[in-house]
Amino acid sequence: MKAVVFDKELKLVNDYEKPVPQKGEALIRVTLAGICNTDFEITKGYMGYKGILGHEAVGIVEEVNGPDKSLVGKRVVSEISYGCKEPDCPYCAQKLYRHCPNRHTLGIWRKDGCFAEYFTMPTEVLFEVPQNVTDEQAVFVEPLAAACEITEQLHIKPFEKVIVLGDGKLGLITALTLNAQNIDVILVGKHQNKLDIARAQGVETKLLQDLKVEKTYDVVVEATGSISGFETALALTKPRGTLVLKSTVAASKEFNLAPIVIDEITVLGSRCGQFGAALRLLKSGKVDFSPLISARFKADDAIEAFEKNKEKETLKVLLEF
Amino acid sequence: MKAVVFDKELKLVNDYEKPVPQKGEALIRVTLAGICNTDFEITKGYMGYKGILGHEAVGIVEEVNGPDKSLVGKRVVSEISYGCKEPDCPYCAQKLYRHCPNRHTLGIWRKDGCFAEYFTMPTEVLFEVPQNVTDEQAVFVEPLAAACEITEQLHIKPFEKVIVLGDGKLGLITALTLNAQNIDVILVGKHQNKLDIARAQGVETKLLQDLKVEKTYDVVVEATGSISGFETALALTKPRGTLVLKSTVAASKEFNLAPIVIDEITVLGSRCGQFGAALRLLKSGKVDFSPLISARFKADDAIEAFEKNKEKETLKVLLEF
Repeated sequence: MKAVVFDKELKLVNDYEKPVPQKGEALIRVTLAGICNTDFEITKGYMGYKGILGHEAVGIVEEVNGPDKSLVGKRVVSEISYGCKEPDCPYCAQKLYRHCPNRHTLGIWRKDGCFAEYFTMPTEVLFEVPQNVTDEQAVFVEPLAAACEITEQLHIKPFEKVIVLGDGKLGLITALTLNAQNIDVILVGKHQNKLDIARAQGVETKLLQDLKVEKTYDVVVEATGSISGFETALALTKPRGTLVLKSTVAASKEFNLAPIVIDEITVLGSRCGQFGAALRLLKSGKVDFSPLISARFKADDAIEAFEKNKEKETLKVLLEF
Repeated sequence: MKAVVFDKELKLVNDYEKPVPQKGEALIRVTLAGICNTDFEITKGYMGYKGILGHEAVGIVEEVNGPDKSLVGKRVVSEISYGCKEPDCPYCAQKLYRHCPNRHTLGIWRKDGCFAEYFTMPTEVLFEVPQNVTDEQAVFVEPLAAACEITEQLHIKPFEKVIVLGDGKLGLITALTLNAQNIDVILVGKHQNKLDIARAQGVETKLLQDLKVEKTYDVVVEATGSISGFETALALTKPRGTLVLKSTVAASKEFNLAPIVIDEITVLGSRCGQFGAALRLLKSGKVDFSPLISARFKADDAIEAFEKNKEKETLKVLLEF
């Protein structure tokens, strides 16, 4: 089968062996996939991963090796991690597979990804896509779930002021998601055209250059993808407020942690989320991610798609299989 | 009056003007005071403070300028900050005076401290010391309140494992305080003789060199007072666990924040606390801080007391007025 593989270099392979679903797994035929910045980071060496890339996809279940035969023919999306499911694993017991120390993660860690004609995943991490949700929206479910994770971890009260820093994919999806939950949110970034995508859906926005940097926000979401975003975020967080760290930046920087103590700030690391809430939001139609789609490529042009993804102005790049 | 003053240099002044209580304030005659590391930091330039040092003291109310005349003659301790009490200050409304942007802080910020024969503070931040609590215990109420702050900010569940890093004053008081709340706590440090103080009161202890550094703790309290403690603390925190930052370290260091995101760690800055819980704990007799007293000095020997405080083996140094 066709597959986008990273092994020292990024390549399109035409004769990759079609995967065989293991016990409890489904075989999914990919229809549409999305490139994430993590895929790009992997091509620079992140996680030391080798294999088929990709962890954002929509597809049709073709085969199930296990009891859930009713899934066959269904249009599904897949959570990206599955756990050991050992009886004494506290993370698996809570379905927090993404924190299981022995997890496998689609296209990132010990599991071939979804930038291929087919991939396999355990049936318990598959979710049927509601009929009224198009493939173009459903392909955003993974980053959307990551945005929903914030309100899973943190109780944001109706009177609290939230600011999201960064108008890339992560910041836009986060701001749209919080806004769809009736949270008082403002999105700040450097690009008026990107901010306008959120503004068109009712999100208050501001250019960074117009922002007064004061400790006035109860919740600050750092989604700039840049290591220097942390200090700006800290400077915006109220005493006793919460700074949600969304960007995974491999780089290090010199920080002074004293302000965290003096102002009793909570710094909350926030990564992936569960798909239930994300699919509910997509089904409701309260968010529309189609304006984030910068380009669509056929699988045969996957290398070109990755090049497009590198461009500064690009938001989401999709791959058709 | 006699006062220990910092103004470019530390000095004992014998003719400092006795303070006059402003409206709403009490005049307190100091009996016993404690030197804190923050006092020492101030002598190195922290907060740019000039004036009488000191924020840990027990004393007797001699005079009240206001309605609370019943306080006269009472033995009291004082919270260290008072706020603006403006109607629109959200921090003052919650009695979180220590976060009021216009606060005054005893011996630290815009308010003469308690290393003197007399000091003044607003009556609403004074607390009567229970009869069965000696001056030697009561003088620990401020750092004890800072330790109680952890359970004010964070719900530590009975089955959760807590580790405190650092066997200085801060670490010892924190471990003793958590242990007195029936929390499953282990104290780790580099000094067997200091660890033994906590062990004698039922706290499990371990030398750092014997500690297996693994992500196995639900709550990690960083109380080493050293900038490098943060990385050890992070390496001990379970995915989705909490790292409580207690040390206020002025220095900066290069950090990689990605592990906070990947493991969805909560980093919780924790500073001072309210005195109610601290006094209740002292009254109960569940904690005994007398083994932490390394030395007592007469006020006339205050400079010598500060020298003693610098020694690595020293825990608490007291000053008699």
